[in-house]
Amino acid sequence: MGDIRDGACLTEEEKMLAGKYYLGGDPHLTQLRKEARHKVKALEETRDDPERYSEAIKSLLGTVVDDNVIIESPVYFDYGKNTHVGKWFYMNSMCTILDCARVDIGDNVLFGPNVQVYTAEHPVDPATRLEGLEFARPIKIGNNVWVGGSATILAGVTIGDGVTIAAGAVVTKDVPDNVVVAGVPARIVKHL
Amino acid sequence: MGDIRDGACLTEEEKMLAGKYYLGGDPHLTQLRKEARHKVKALEETRDDPERYSEAIKSLLGTVVDDNVIIESPVYFDYGKNTHVGKWFYMNSMCTILDCARVDIGDNVLFGPNVQVYTAEHPVDPATRLEGLEFARPIKIGNNVWVGGSATILAGVTIGDGVTIAAGAVVTKDVPDNVVVAGVPARIVKHL
Amino acid sequence: MGDIRDGACLTEEEKMLAGKYYLGGDPHLTQLRKEARHKVKALEETRDDPERYSEAIKSLLGTVVDDNVIIESPVYFDYGKNTHVGKWFYMNSMCTILDCARVDIGDNVLFGPNVQVYTAEHPVDPATRLEGLEFARPIKIGNNVWVGGSATILAGVTIGDGVTIAAGAVVTKDVPDNVVVAGVPARIVKHL
Repeated sequence: MGDIRDGACLTEEEKMLAGKYYLGGDPHLTQLRKEARHKVKALEETRDDPERYSEAIKSLLGTVVDDNVIIESPVYFDYGKNTHVGKWFYMNSMCTILDCARVDIGDNVLFGPNVQVYTAEHPVDPATRLEGLEFARPIKIGNNVWVGGSATILAGVTIGDGVTIAAGAVVTKDVPDNVVVAGVPARIVKHL
Repeated sequence: MGDIRDGACLTEEEKMLAGKYYLGGDPHLTQLRKEARHKVKALEETRDDPERYSEAIKSLLGTVVDDNVIIESPVYFDYGKNTHVGKWFYMNSMCTILDCARVDIGDNVLFGPNVQVYTAEHPVDPATRLEGLEFARPIKIGNNVWVGGSATILAGVTIGDGVTIAAGAVVTKDVPDNVVVAGVPARIVKHL
Repeated sequence: MGDIRDGACLTEEEKMLAGKYYLGGDPHLTQLRKEARHKVKALEETRDDPERYSEAIKSLLGTVVDDNVIIESPVYFDYGKNTHVGKWFYMNSMCTILDCARVDIGDNVLFGPNVQVYTAEHPVDPATRLEGLEFARPIKIGNNVWVGGSATILAGVTIGDGVTIAAGAVVTKDVPDNVVVAGVPARIVKHL
């Protein structure tokens, strides 16, 4: 953890994005999460109007490269703007992305329903947690990945290209290219 | 997989219901999913008016045999009309039914919250997935079954009568009558 | 189970709170769940107005001791009034609390998204289930606990102080103070 407290010159948002301890209750971060809630609501309200829906998606996310991004409602993002998606991204209903740190999603990625992507962490040490400090680590998902329904991807994980994550898996470690992982915690069950 | 591509004379919806590869982005299927979203919304809006609620349930699902069907919101169905339920069905909040293939639910079935029923599958082979092809296999749930909260039932599974599925179980294989299954993947933990 | 049917002089609500078999379809209980749905809706509608939001929280829950309680939407409570929370409680989006029996949550508790707290149970015996009988057992969560996203806590469980529950864990047994538990079913993976 060495320098995780070393961010005296940074704003809370800068600390958050740098993987340092930060205060989640910071007023600026609270305001950003409020804006994300409103942008998420716009997804639901514009779902039947492709042009406005596409604008709503682009307003919410940090990077969107084409009009082939669909996010079914309800959905939850902490910030939205820290999530960056490639071409042809489909995210089914009731997914959650805690994008305190950066989330990168490649091209041709499919999320089943209820998928959970958590860059956010709290200290496991109870005394540190009482200080209100939290931290986050980025998540990266490669190209052509299918994340099965109810799967969970934890902070700091990188997932390779061509991967399938089985329904209900909890991914705690990096996943190489072209494998299927399953279980809690997820293990490789097939090489493709 | 033999003849999974053998559906040249069929519409995409017919291929989907026949267990063949189909294009999920087909305009007719997209329209059907849009209709399902509207019917699902009506469930929430009519929840306090038993008569209109009962009509909303019947409009959404493929088969409903009595007025004793309750589906708490929010909920997600891909189509709704491919789901057929028996007498006395209760489905708690935040469940998802991907009913691309037929879903049959018997009499006296209880779903806890966050239950996931997925007939939908994507090819595990990355190259096939890039063609936009997907497929689906039917799910059948017997009579007098309790599906615990956050349990997941995968494509092609048949569940017998008198079964209890423990909270958080991921059911990947058929389940015989009168047992309790638990775990990821689910295994029989008790014979009744 | 001895005297679980022994509640002849009690209302269905009294039986429910006493851990006896009761009829979930009882009209008074049905009315209470309807009221909870309306109070839950108010949380979403007042989210941007701290004063009205704080009132909505206090109206929903049984005990609230300060203004530092946040419950993100969507959320589901069976009753709300059977849930009692301490100081500084944060519950992320898409959580479910089935508070048929009492749920006690200590001070400084953090819930990730999609956390499931189920005091509700149905009889595993299919014949008893057909009578429409259900029962509930209280859940208690200590002080300074972090419940990771998609974790599930089952009926009758007591969780100690200073605990971390890993994402996706299914907690079926009591958890002592100052440990980390993980897995399905959850086991202790670290002593703090």
